[in-house]
Amino acid sequence: MISLAKKALEAKDFLSSVTEKQKNAALLEIAKSLRNNAQTIIEENKRDIENGERAGLGKGLLDRLMLNTQRIEDMAKGVESVAALDDPCGIVLEEKTRPNGLIIKKITVPLGVIGIIYEARPNVTADAAALCLKSSNAVILRGGKEAINSNIAIASVMRNAIKNQGFDKNCIQLVTDTSRESANEMMRLDGYLDCLIPRGGKNLIKTVVKNSTVPVIETGSGNCHIYVDEFADTDMAARIIFNAKTQRISVCNACESLVIHSGIINEALPKIKAALDKKSVEIRGDERAMLAADGILPASDEDFAEEYLDYIISVKTVDSLDEAIRHINKYSTRHSEAIITENGDNAAEFLRRIDSSSVYVNASTRFTDGGEFGLGAEIGISTQKLHARGPMGLRELTTTKYLIYGNGQIRE
Amino acid sequence: MISLAKKALEAKDFLSSVTEKQKNAALLEIAKSLRNNAQTIIEENKRDIENGERAGLGKGLLDRLMLNTQRIEDMAKGVESVAALDDPCGIVLEEKTRPNGLIIKKITVPLGVIGIIYEARPNVTADAAALCLKSSNAVILRGGKEAINSNIAIASVMRNAIKNQGFDKNCIQLVTDTSRESANEMMRLDGYLDCLIPRGGKNLIKTVVKNSTVPVIETGSGNCHIYVDEFADTDMAARIIFNAKTQRISVCNACESLVIHSGIINEALPKIKAALDKKSVEIRGDERAMLAADGILPASDEDFAEEYLDYIISVKTVDSLDEAIRHINKYSTRHSEAIITENGDNAAEFLRRIDSSSVYVNASTRFTDGGEFGLGAEIGISTQKLHARGPMGLRELTTTKYLIYGNGQIRE
Repeated sequence: MISLAKKALEAKDFLSSVTEKQKNAALLEIAKSLRNNAQTIIEENKRDIENGERAGLGKGLLDRLMLNTQRIEDMAKGVESVAALDDPCGIVLEEKTRPNGLIIKKITVPLGVIGIIYEARPNVTADAAALCLKSSNAVILRGGKEAINSNIAIASVMRNAIKNQGFDKNCIQLVTDTSRESANEMMRLDGYLDCLIPRGGKNLIKTVVKNSTVPVIETGSGNCHIYVDEFADTDMAARIIFNAKTQRISVCNACESLVIHSGIINEALPKIKAALDKKSVEIRGDERAMLAADGILPASDEDFAEEYLDYIISVKTVDSLDEAIRHINKYSTRHSEAIITENGDNAAEFLRRIDSSSVYVNASTRFTDGGEFGLGAEIGISTQKLHARGPMGLRELTTTKYLIYGNGQIRE
Repeated sequence: MISLAKKALEAKDFLSSVTEKQKNAALLEIAKSLRNNAQTIIEENKRDIENGERAGLGKGLLDRLMLNTQRIEDMAKGVESVAALDDPCGIVLEEKTRPNGLIIKKITVPLGVIGIIYEARPNVTADAAALCLKSSNAVILRGGKEAINSNIAIASVMRNAIKNQGFDKNCIQLVTDTSRESANEMMRLDGYLDCLIPRGGKNLIKTVVKNSTVPVIETGSGNCHIYVDEFADTDMAARIIFNAKTQRISVCNACESLVIHSGIINEALPKIKAALDKKSVEIRGDERAMLAADGILPASDEDFAEEYLDYIISVKTVDSLDEAIRHINKYSTRHSEAIITENGDNAAEFLRRIDSSSVYVNASTRFTDGGEFGLGAEIGISTQKLHARGPMGLRELTTTKYLIYGNGQIRE
């Protein structure tokens, strides 16, 4: 691992001097090579699928693991779309001349070396490498053992492609040891890694946050709430909630919990339930919710903290906006929350006091996404507050640097 | 500690709705109260000084601990100057309307609850609290045991002052248990603390970075280099190096190591040595440095990694700019480095490839400072890359939040 890390430092130094044109050429070469080597990648992927079937992986996991020509084409197109984005490096954020004549510029620069720990999806290998390359970062990728043969094939294609364009191939490196030990070693690479991004399930992210001494960008988990205010349009509420809960249940911006004002629950909940019934969503509510509509199951306190990622939703009844905000700030994972209301003051208070990355008025939480926010690409959704919050694009893979130009200034 | 943390969450919610005017009134009230209660604070400080003398604290430490009328006046003035700064919250960084009609605003908001772990200087208690209050953050302060009586007195004055202005006094809290255990508990306050900032010596910072599961902003240590290029003005080099090494030896932006091109070392080093001799600086160099000037002691590899904070400096001889950059990137703490050169290309390459927060051409590294960079105030100097890099002002105590305004949008 240390030998990989040392090679990454060399690659970082190499990347400090490449131009945007060179980076784009390397990315287009990667896309071309992925297409040209699709058959080899698919063959290696078959070995992963066979191993996975033998190991008894579930259907969902096997599907996420599987590659075919179409999926490799999508990967290549993804890399091309990253090439088409603006270069996030070298942007002058500030420039000032101090009274002593010093000229101080603050510019964006790559983070340096980024580590990415992820799970079974082999497309992350290409996505993450492309985003890191476009932002002039060296990357060390460590995917899950389920996808190891696919990842080795994809990484090898990418490394050869950038080498053909005159790049240090160690700008992209893959950890081939998929033991727990190798992940732990990565989390301790202080002085080599500038940042570690875990991508995957709750447990992976928790483990990395707890054990890493390298700075981490926490991504992912979303116990997202929708609050139906006393002054809500209840038809709109039902439409938005149906979308936020059922349009895709396995994602972090799906709605997991409803908070409904007691003054409107008798009107709102039957409509919401009728909508959710179309996809047989199980509703677990507190006592007042159970009285407001038929067929609501009882909710426990644990339900309010749960990210179901399933056709289940919880309902909490409140008597005021203040109570709603306190409930949400207590249970949310600070990802995305929405208020449905026609009252501007209540909307403003909700936007101000809710402590989440993305706070909505009258829209579905499902929009929290790099593409939907117009970032062009996304490396993950940050639920922490340092460095990046919400959907992270290329800019979030940069840091800043002060350049100071003098002519002999000393401090008095 | 959990009870403090819960009170901080309440205070955070309170602060989400205060105006700039209210914050400034609270800060001015703090300044006034510090002045009015100077005698009480000085009496409590005397107890710390007596305990410190009994415990055999060194002169330097006792001096940093000591408060008198003048130092309390400086504290009060510091708080007033923070009140005069612009509010860093609520700034609209981006605003766009998406094709589906969603209006997305990205605004600056407080981090939330900030923990600060520091050592013996009681003025940090007032400084840090003022910066946190101005940026609408609740703060939990944990100073060193040496200053505990002073800190309790200062915190109590500040808490009463803001309460007089209608604030939740728990916007400012002090941990009165100064055991190692209380620091460890603070480092594990995930879900309460949004960020932890250690201020103090290398060991304190290292301990917090290693053990904290709360996101940390690493501040401080500086093994700062000055590279004397082949094309340097050697008189300027000597002047800048004398300033960077000796103007104040105990600070993180002081120069600790010189790197000198072999083509100029015979001209440069005698001049540099003559300057440093005025303050009896010990010079430890490699073999070629020892040949270039009389009275140079031998340097070991450990010397190149050392942050002396003393009248000592190391010298490494190199044969190229590339070798200089590699040496510096290997040994630096990524704080501040300078090149002395009249060659524009070499300056540009140094600025591009040196991986430090602040990179200088022909100026002293001593300028890396919030005041000198025009930030108005400084909570510390970040040597990490996530969130903040280099001197951190009020803006670095904020994060961002997306506000999304819809009229019923759902995701297709």
